[in-house]
Formats: sequence, structure tokens, C-alpha cells
Amino acid sequence: MAETILGATFVTIFIPASCLIGILFALLQWYVVSLVKVGGGSSSNGNKNGHSDYLLDSSEEGGDEASVIEKVKSIQEAISEGAESFLVTEYKYLAIFMSLFSVIIFLFLGSVGGFSTDLVPCTHDSAELCSAPLANAIFTTIAFILGALTSTFSGYLGMKIATYANARTALEARKSVGQAFIVAFRSGAVMGFSLAASGLLVLFITILLFKIYYGNDWVGLYEAITGYGLGGSSVALFGRVGGGIYTKAADVGADLVGKVERNIPEDDPRNPAVIADNVGDNVGDIAGMGADLFGSFAESTCAALVISSISSFGQERSFVAMSYPLLISAVGIIVCLITALFATDLFVIKNVDQIEPALKRQLVISTVLMTLGVFAVSYVALPSTFLINVIGKESLHAKWWHVWLCVASGLWAGLLIGYVTEYFTSNTYSPVREVADACKTGAATNIIFGMALGYKSVIVPVFAIAASIYLSFTFAAMYGIAVAALGMLGTLSTGLAIDAYGPISDNAGGIAEMAGMNHAVRERTDALDAAGNTTAAIGKGFAIGSAALVSLALFGAYVSRAGISIVNVIEAQTFVGLIVGAMLPYWFSAMTMKSVGTAALAMVEEVRRQFNTMDGIMEGRVKPDYKRCVAISTDASLREMIPPGALVMLTPIIVGTLFGVNTLAGLLAGALVSGVQIAISASNTGGAWDNAKKYIEAGVSDHAKSLGPKGSDAHKAAVIGDTVGDPLKDTSGPSLNILIKLMAVESLVFAPFFAAHGGILLKYLS
Amino acid sequence: MAETILGATFVTIFIPASCLIGILFALLQWYVVSLVKVGGGSSSNGNKNGHSDYLLDSSEEGGDEASVIEKVKSIQEAISEGAESFLVTEYKYLAIFMSLFSVIIFLFLGSVGGFSTDLVPCTHDSAELCSAPLANAIFTTIAFILGALTSTFSGYLGMKIATYANARTALEARKSVGQAFIVAFRSGAVMGFSLAASGLLVLFITILLFKIYYGNDWVGLYEAITGYGLGGSSVALFGRVGGGIYTKAADVGADLVGKVERNIPEDDPRNPAVIADNVGDNVGDIAGMGADLFGSFAESTCAALVISSISSFGQERSFVAMSYPLLISAVGIIVCLITALFATDLFVIKNVDQIEPALKRQLVISTVLMTLGVFAVSYVALPSTFLINVIGKESLHAKWWHVWLCVASGLWAGLLIGYVTEYFTSNTYSPVREVADACKTGAATNIIFGMALGYKSVIVPVFAIAASIYLSFTFAAMYGIAVAALGMLGTLSTGLAIDAYGPISDNAGGIAEMAGMNHAVRERTDALDAAGNTTAAIGKGFAIGSAALVSLALFGAYVSRAGISIVNVIEAQTFVGLIVGAMLPYWFSAMTMKSVGTAALAMVEEVRRQFNTMDGIMEGRVKPDYKRCVAISTDASLREMIPPGALVMLTPIIVGTLFGVNTLAGLLAGALVSGVQIAISASNTGGAWDNAKKYIEAGVSDHAKSLGPKGSDAHKAAVIGDTVGDPLKDTSGPSLNILIKLMAVESLVFAPFFAAHGGILLKYLS
Repeated sequence: MAETILGATFVTIFIPASCLIGILFALLQWYVVSLVKVGGGSSSNGNKNGHSDYLLDSSEEGGDEASVIEKVKSIQEAISEGAESFLVTEYKYLAIFMSLFSVIIFLFLGSVGGFSTDLVPCTHDSAELCSAPLANAIFTTIAFILGALTSTFSGYLGMKIATYANARTALEARKSVGQAFIVAFRSGAVMGFSLAASGLLVLFITILLFKIYYGNDWVGLYEAITGYGLGGSSVALFGRVGGGIYTKAADVGADLVGKVERNIPEDDPRNPAVIADNVGDNVGDIAGMGADLFGSFAESTCAALVISSISSFGQERSFVAMSYPLLISAVGIIVCLITALFATDLFVIKNVDQIEPALKRQLVISTVLMTLGVFAVSYVALPSTFLINVIGKESLHAKWWHVWLCVASGLWAGLLIGYVTEYFTSNTYSPVREVADACKTGAATNIIFGMALGYKSVIVPVFAIAASIYLSFTFAAMYGIAVAALGMLGTLSTGLAIDAYGPISDNAGGIAEMAGMNHAVRERTDALDAAGNTTAAIGKGFAIGSAALVSLALFGAYVSRAGISIVNVIEAQTFVGLIVGAMLPYWFSAMTMKSVGTAALAMVEEVRRQFNTMDGIMEGRVKPDYKRCVAISTDASLREMIPPGALVMLTPIIVGTLFGVNTLAGLLAGALVSGVQIAISASNTGGAWDNAKKYIEAGVSDHAKSLGPKGSDAHKAAVIGDTVGDPLKDTSGPSLNILIKLMAVESLVFAPFFAAHGGILLKYLS
Repeated sequence: MAETILGATFVTIFIPASCLIGILFALLQWYVVSLVKVGGGSSSNGNKNGHSDYLLDSSEEGGDEASVIEKVKSIQEAISEGAESFLVTEYKYLAIFMSLFSVIIFLFLGSVGGFSTDLVPCTHDSAELCSAPLANAIFTTIAFILGALTSTFSGYLGMKIATYANARTALEARKSVGQAFIVAFRSGAVMGFSLAASGLLVLFITILLFKIYYGNDWVGLYEAITGYGLGGSSVALFGRVGGGIYTKAADVGADLVGKVERNIPEDDPRNPAVIADNVGDNVGDIAGMGADLFGSFAESTCAALVISSISSFGQERSFVAMSYPLLISAVGIIVCLITALFATDLFVIKNVDQIEPALKRQLVISTVLMTLGVFAVSYVALPSTFLINVIGKESLHAKWWHVWLCVASGLWAGLLIGYVTEYFTSNTYSPVREVADACKTGAATNIIFGMALGYKSVIVPVFAIAASIYLSFTFAAMYGIAVAALGMLGTLSTGLAIDAYGPISDNAGGIAEMAGMNHAVRERTDALDAAGNTTAAIGKGFAIGSAALVSLALFGAYVSRAGISIVNVIEAQTFVGLIVGAMLPYWFSAMTMKSVGTAALAMVEEVRRQFNTMDGIMEGRVKPDYKRCVAISTDASLREMIPPGALVMLTPIIVGTLFGVNTLAGLLAGALVSGVQIAISASNTGGAWDNAKKYIEAGVSDHAKSLGPKGSDAHKAAVIGDTVGDPLKDTSGPSLNILIKLMAVESLVFAPFFAAHGGILLKYLS
């Protein structure tokens, strides 16, 4: 048996310990943020506290200090309530869905062995006996529920801290941009660390508990654990798709009536949809993104575990080597913690120009540290050489540093994707400026150039993913792909922190506007927000890049679990799967785009109704009914997510059952290679349009000034592009991650069923 | 040896005979069109002829009869000259490209056997001797040149007849819509029949001549013939991509200055780019579409021939069965001829409502007749049972009617795609009306709904293609796919005729406007044009559908020629090829969209320059310099097609040489499954926006009236959509056909080289 330097005891302590450190760090950040007090009435500190927050730095437009604070407090409460009401409603739907799907998982998997409680010969070695089919069905269902609950909890927590931090960021912005930045960043870190740590902790504990039953049947154990990935990913469907529809329905609905019809500015408190719009940032970009990345983390870990359970780690029962994927994530938490200190303590932001570099520095530092950390982990946790299972071929001899290279390739591919995304979506570079320039000749050229930019922005990321895949596969087959995905997600806490930072700053800007804070404050929150836009685009790049690697790893795990040795595209079944799979992202995007349109229309009608029937809103005498808008947006978005959700959830089941495992393999490959492209191009196009508009509005260069100011023809053209881009970058694009990952993990979980009973239509035909 | 009912002599007579009938029919149509006289001076008939064309039906706005005729004549001459000058310049570039590429083909293929003149053991049976590698290199190069010349000739002819017919259609529109329709339709038929017939004739003669050298080495013979497909497709690159950039650069350039800046209507003779715009319709939509479909025809025939040369037809030297793919096309010519009579002689168009049904009826009639015709051909030309080669597996036993079903599946899938395309792009159905309705809330919602429509329109065509692939592959492996593609192209003459009809009518409308014909005439040409828009969309649907099948057949032929038995996507090389291949259509689209933008900008500058420096243009006193605009558009479009052209031509060579046959196989599959989706969605989105605008302009229903009239906010939003859609539907979308087909046929031709010397980078790395 190949020896590892590290012992099992160390692993059993180290993983939960790093999770606890992550959670403690998150709590500490929360505590620091909570020192900024909002509102006088409810706070025991009264109007003053140690941080002298309420020093009015200059005259407010909206009245005196107390009135501003009061306004901030009431706005924050409204947003927080709105977000909570959305999530509670979403969780109701989710609970129904989860119950139903738990039953389906149990029935489908149980039926494979006729719900037998007898031990059966193992698939990988028929001389041994493996766990009963019924047990697999039960444990997979339990893992599914646990994954779903953990993801739900993390999303809820993220939303809570975000709605807690937005007002505090706005208040701090009155003092200085640096202090506001730190509040927003710390709040993002709460989300990032608590999610990564609790996800890993629950998974690790689940494995330990399941092991009590499974004993030495490691293949069965880790196959049951795949349910965890499916659970996490199912919640992501609700978060990303439902939340994505919500956020854009509210945004577009608010803009169409407010900006276009009533000619009032963005974030104007007279707009009935303004709270819903701000809620949208939290439920879509924070809870949705969190659930998405949690899903990726859970899925890539599950994929790596399933593959290694049939490689030499599993066959030789090397607990330390088996835990390698978990150790990567554990080290990631520590690395990200150190990285975060660079932003919060080692450097101080003095002016707005330093925000974006500070955030980008986070990415570089965490990537460099992680590369070193993974090197150490690989050295101590992996045997010096070992066998890795290759589907349909002889096993591969791999060395520990081969696997390290796989993880590193994922990490650095992620960084490269991040930088390319920034190049194509930030208005400091020529691509966005060219798009802004195209606004001179009208909205049509803006759209054409923006679309061309999105298409072009796909090239380098796909080459980066392809290179990482080639390298990882060559060194460690599908296991290499899975750990490359984990590598890209290794800096998850940092990624999430800077990602959550964006919507928090965006909300802070909204609150500053609504509370009538002065121009200087608004400028600071705008600068925070602009940097957040870019990091949001980078985050989306990471999300889709890791989704591609994760899906491929899941695909590999599916193929091996379904007992397929070759996925041959010159066979009719497989090719048909491939071309139909490549079509699915289009079908899905059509649905999500349409959903945004329909939900936005429901919002438009409500906003119009309030303006028309409630006198005094426009004059500011009457407060509009924000809650009703939140409710409308909630209902419409959750109703509208049913068709795309059904497409994702039902396709693998229908295809696997009717056409069998080969067609499904083709379908997954097709959806993956096609979906990646649309997802990247949609999110970058949208980001570029957004920043082209901001470029014209800010007017920082002569070129930008020649296109502006606000209200010029070029600016109007830019606004049209921005509106088109909104659903692309915040709904249909990111939702595609879910499409490709969820179909893959679902296929993996149901693989034994499809292998046993699938392809009934083709069997009937032939 | 399996017997066929038909004898070889019959085939040797029937194929050229049907080609000659087709050519004669085309000449007859031309003669009938030529009876309509344009202009007095140059025509010997003077101002009157037997058809009493010059009866002025009502007062012309532009002056008396003679002056209108004179204007028509001079406009027609300008368009004709412009088109000719574009094509001549294009052919110069083409000649250079062809010379270079001939050398490359010769060198690459010659190098496989070290330019040996000795006979070599055959790849399929090493006991036999096959033709010398040098001979293969020479004959492939010759076939390449012949294919290119035939395509060039057909495109030139199509352009000639189109520019000949446009003025005649405008003149006939003064009498009645029915007579105008017949002129346009007959002219389209000249193009359709001459192209299909000459393409088949040259191919057949080439085969007979090559056979003198090759004798019994049928595999070598038909492999050399693949050069014909590559030649045809290379010209299509210039026609589709160069022509596509030209037509949209001229169109967008004319509109941006004319409509937007100077506020003059479309087709206004004061616009210096107006002639270039009309030229564009001819070079892009006629010569380009012709070259594209000629390429598809040549390629699918070559694919079918290569595959059958290694199936039992080839091994048993059954000339009749080998000629089956050619017989399908020969029967197609006869079927389309009968079909055309329904439009020209059996039915008479009395009012505008009958135009679209008449054109659609052509599709249905030709499909039904072709199904019967192919049934007969399959019965008499194929042995009752025979063996078909399956890559990497045992041969398949097929019956004659199995193959018939393959052809029929292609035919009917084509019809279904046509109907779905119509449903999504015609403004008589709800999808386009919904898009028009979205214009109420502005350009942004119009764009979002239009994009969603395009995505949605992909679903059914992909299922149709998938079903046809599954059926064909099950019955006759890759041979089935190739003949399914031929089936879809079986009604090529009819398809091309109604396709060419569109731009001719469009031009006729332009000429009527420029010559100042009265409102009634303009309404008739508008109706002709609107029907043409729909048929153009249907034609594009056919083109992409057949391109998908053709590429798959070529892919199959490539795989077998490259000696690959499995294209396994769970191997790193292949998967990397797949994901990069799926990215190529995005890269290519980004390039073509950007090219249109750059070329349009060159045009805008020239038009502005003329307006600014040449006094009196706006007042109509001075004729603008049309020729200069034509020249600018020509140069810009041909210069701008170099990057996308290079991407298409170089990718297979680079990937095959550096990464080998497996990566290239993955790349082709990826580009195919991804490209089909973008091509369909781009062309349908563009078509829908165009017709949504027309729907608002025409204002035929209460709903349409509520959105209009011209100049309303909704109409302005619709115009923006239309402008965005133009490059999508006329340049980047259709160009993707070329991308996927040309890469596949090029890989097929170079397969022996890649198999022998390819993959040097991977060899070096490992």
C-alpha cells in the first residue's frame, strides 16, 4: 500500500479545524461590521459610538443627520424584509421540490436492485460484496437533503449579512471611501468564509457518518455522497434562475416605468419598485451566486471522490489520499483568510483609484498562496506514485506532483479567465471603449459591437479551459479534471467575498441616493459600485470556468458509473445526443429571457397602477407600496422559473430513461461545450454594455466627454445596450452554469438506474 | 455481385441528359424573360414590342414614359456594372487564393507518399495495388480547380441574370403583380437550374475522365473527386463571406448616412451608396447563396461517393449503384422542372396575397414529387441488399428502401425546417407579432425578445436534423447521412429559384423607387419583396440544415479516410478539440460582425464625403459618384474577409498538423454542433426583426396600426432591431455554413496527410 506522509488522525482534525477557523473568521468580520450602528432608536449606543459614525461631514440634501439616519434605517429594513420575504417564499417552493425529488431519487435508485436489503456483488469487483441497493437509495437521498439544506443556509446567511451591511457601507461612505470599502469587503468575507467552511464541514461530517454504515465499501459510500452535490446544485437552480429572474424583473420593471415613463432617476424613493430592485441585487447576485458556487464546490468534490474511490486510493483504502479533494478546500480556507488580511489590515484604501487594484490583488495573492499551499498538501497527502482509473483503458501511473500540476492548472486558468473577463468588461481598456464609441452611430451599432465583443471574449477563456483540461487529463485522467475544478474553486472564499462586495456596494449607493445623502457620498459609493461591476464580471467568469471543469468531471464520473467505456460521436445515438445537447442552452436561454420579460411586465403593470391610483407618490407626499412590488416580483419570478427549471431537471431523466446512457452522454457533452460559450459571451456582453454606459456617464476622458453627457444621443444608445445586457449577464448567462452542472450531477446520481433500466424507447424500436 | 435493375449505359446517358434538359430549361426561361425589353436606345425593338410593355398604366411621378424607361435602363446598367466590378475584383483575389491553395493541396497530398509515382498497397486492402500518391495529388488538385471554376461560373451567371431581371420585374410590375412575379420567378429559375445542372454535369464528366486513369482503383478515384467539393466550397467562402460583408456594409452604410443623418428615404437616388446597396443584394444573396448551396451539393455528393467507394458498391465495382448520389440530383432536376411549371404555367397569380402561397407550394410539390422520384431511382439503381461500411464496426446490411428512407428523411426534414423558419420569421404568425409588440417598450425589449425568438427557433430544426441523422445512420451509417443531405438538396433548383427570386424583387422595388414609378407599382414590388423575405429565410434554413448534414457526412468520410475508428470524447485530445471547435463559430462570428462594421464605416465616410464636397446632390442636381461607393465597398469587403477566411482555411491545417487527426475530429464535431445553433438563431432573429419592422410599417391589422405608423417610437425601436439583424441574418449567420462545411471538406481532402504526418506537437510533447 502506498504510504502518505500525513496520517489519518491529522486529516480528521485538520479539515474540521480549518472549517471552524473559517467560521470564526466570518463571525469576527460580522462583529467588526456590526460596530457600525444604524439608526438611533433601536441601538443602545444612542447617537454616538466609539467610531464617531454620525459626524456629518457636510450638509446633507435630505435634511439633518437624524433624519438621514432614520431614512437609512427604514430603507435597510425594507430591503431586508423584502429579501427575506422572497427567500421564504422561494424556500416554500424549494421544500416542495425537494420533497418530491427526494422521493424520485429514492424510488429510482431503490428500483435498481428491486429495493433489496441484501448485499450485492460490487460492480468494480464482483468477488466482493457491496452495500445493499436500498441503503444506497436511502443514503443518497439523505446526502441530497443535507446538500440542499447547507446551500440554503449559506444563501440565507449571505443575504442576511448583505442586507445588514449595505446601510452600514452607505453610512461609512460619508467618512471616507476606505472605510466604506472595508465594511463592504468584510461583509462579503462573512459570506465567502461561512459558505466555504460550512459546506466543507457538513460534507466531511456526512462522510464520516456514512462511513459507519458503509465500512469498507468506499465506492458505495462516495456514490451516495454524490447526492450532496445534487442537493447543492438543485438549490442553485432556484437561487440562480429564480433569483436571476427576480433581480432583472425588478430592475427592468423599475427602469421602464421610472426612468423611461416618469423620467425620475434610478434609485428614486418615489419609484414603487425601488426596494424590489435593491432586494434583487441581494437575492440574485448574492444568494444566487453563493448557491451556484457552493454547488460547484460540492459537485467537483463529489466528482473527485467518486473517481478516486475506484482509483488506487479507494482500492487501497487510503483515507488520507481519499481526503485530498477535501484537503484542497481546507487549505483554501486558510489561504483565503491570509489573503483577506491584505485587504482589511495590511493595505489601506485612500482614494477611489485604489479600489479595483485592491480587489484584483486579492485574486493574485490568493492564487499564488494557493499554488504553494496545494504543493505542500499534495506532497504530504498523496502517495509518491499511485494508480488512477482511466475509463475504458488501463490505469494511469501518476505522481503526487502531477496532481499538484492539475490543481495549479485550474487555479491559474481561473486567474487568466478573470483577467480576460476584466479586459473585455472594464472601461479602462479598449474593447469597452470601442463599444462606447459605437454608440455614436446609434443603439444598433452599439448592440452589434457589444455582441461581437462577447463572442470574441470567449476565445481565450476557452483556450485556458482547454489547456487545463488537456494537462489535467494527461496527468491524471478524469481525477485530474475534478481536482483542476477544485483548484479553480480553491480560492472560493476570496472569490465570493469580492463577488458579494459588488451588490453590497450597489445597494449602498441606492441607499445613499434614497436617503438623500450628498453628492460626495454618492460619488464614493459609485466608485465602489463600479469596481464591483468589474469584480462581478470576473466572478461570473470564474463561475462559468469552474462550471465547465466541474461538468466535465461529473461527466467523467457519470460515464464511469454508468459503465460506458467509450463516448463515440460517430455513433448515431451519441451524435444525436451531442447536437441536441448543444441546442439545450439556446432553449434554456430563450426560456429565461422570456421569463424576465414576463416577470418584468407584471412589475411594470404594478408600478404603473401605483403611480396612477395612488395620488401624491410623484410629489413624494405618499410612500409607495414597496411590499406589493416585492411580492409581485417574488411570485412572478418563482412562477416563471418553472419552465426552465423543468427543462433542466427533466431532460436527463427523460433522455436517460428513453434513449439510454450513450445518448445522455452525448447530450451532456454537447450541452457543456455549447453552454460554456453562450454563458461567457452573454455575461461579458452584458458587462461591457453596462460599463460602456458608465464610461459615457462618468466622462473621465476627452473621448468619453465627446460621447456624453447623460441624455445625449450616444448615452441613450448606451442605455439601450445596458438594458439588453441586464438579463444576459444576470439571468440567462449565469443560469447556464446551472444547466450544464445540474444535468451532469443528476445524470451521475441516476446513472445506475439508466444503466439498468434506461433506453426503453431504443430497445423498443430495435 | 449484387445486381441493379438499371444498366450502366442508361446511367451514362440519363445523368448528362437530365443536366442538358436542365440547362435548356434555364435558357428557355432566360429567353422568356428577355422578351421584356428595357430601354429604347439599345434595343432593336424600339419603344414597342409584342408584349406592349410600355403602356403606361397611370401617371408616373418621375415624368413621362420615355424618361422612366430611360431611368430604369441607366439604373439597371449601374447595378449590373457594379455587381460585375465586384465579382471581377473578387475573382482576382480568388484566382490568387486558388493558385496558392492548389499548390498547397498538391504539396501536402504529394508529400504523403514522397511524390512517388509507384503504385502503392491500398489502405482498405493491402493485397491490392492502388494509384500512385503523386497521381492522387495531381487529380485532387485538378478536381479542386474544376469545382472552383464551376462554382464561379454559376455565381457569375446568377448575378448576370439577376441584374438582367430586376429592371424587367420593375417594368412588369406596372402591368400586374402576376406578370412581375413570373419575371422574377423565371429569372430565379435560370439561376437554380443552370447551377444544379452544370454542377452535376461537370462532376459526372470529371468522374468519367478520371476513371480513364484510375481504372479499378475506385477508392483513389473518389478520394481525388473530393477536391471538387473543396473547390466549390472555397468559392463559397468568397461568395458568402465576402459577398455577405459587401451587402451589409453597403446597406448599413447607405442607411446610416441616408436615412439617419440626411433623412432621405431608402433607395433614394440621391444617396451615393444606393447602387452599391442594390449591388449587394445580387452579390451577397444571389452569387453568395448560389455558391453556398453549390458547395453543399458538391460536398454531399463527394461525401456519399467516398463512403460508397469503400462500401459494397465500390468493392463490387457496381457503377450504377456508385452513381446513385448523382442519380438523385439528376432526378431532382427533372422534378424541379415539373414543379416550376406549376408556378409559371399552371397557376396564375392574380393578387398579392397569392405570392407567398405560390412560393410555398413550390416547396411542397417538389418535396412530394422528389420523394416519389427517389423511390423509383432507389428501386432501379440500388441492389436489393448490399453492405455498407460502418466506421470501426462490422459492415451493415442495407436494403434499397432503407436508403430511400434516408433520402426522404433529409427531404422532409428540410421541408419541416422551412416551415418552422417561416413560422418564426413571417409576420403572419404570433412570434414576430410578439417581437413587434415588444417595440412598444422600446428598442431594448425588441432586441431581447428577438434574441429569445432566435434561440427558440433552433429547437424544432435541431430535432428535425437529429431525427434525420438517427434514422439515416441506423439504416445506412454515414452513407445514409450523405444521401439524406443530398435529399435535402434534391430540390435544389426549386430552392435556389425561389431564393434568387427574393433579391430580384428587392432590386425591382429599388429600381421602381429610384425611377420614380408611382405608388401602386411600388406597392406591388413591396409585396413581391415581402414574400421574398420569407422565402429568403426559408432558403437560409435549408442552407444551414443541409450544411449540418453535409458536414456530418464529410466528417464521417474524413474519419474513415484518416483511419480513425472511434471519436471518443472522453479522451483529452478529442474533448479539447470538441470544446475549441464549439468556440470557433463565436470567434468567426465576432470577426464577420466586426468586418461588417469596419466596411460599413468606410462606406459611411465616403457617402459623407460626397454629400459634403459635391454640391447639389441633395437637391438632385448632381448625380452622386455611385461607382466610387461600389469600389469602396468592394475593396473593404474583400479586405475584411481575409481574417475570417484565414480562420476557416488555416484551422484544420494547423490543428491537423500540430495536434493530429483525433483533435481535428473533435474540433469538427464541436464546430458542427455549435455552429448550427448560432447560424439558425442568427438568421431567424434577423428575419424576425426585419419582418417586425415591415409589420409595423404595413399596418394591416389594428394591432399593427397601434404600433405604427412609420416614425412612431415603436417603429424607431423596430428599425434598430432591423439594423442589428442585418449583419446577423445576411453575413455572420449564413457564413457559419461555410465555416462548418469548409473545415470538414478540407479535413477530408488533407486526411491522408494528417494521418501520415499530423500531430507533430503532441508527438513532441509525449
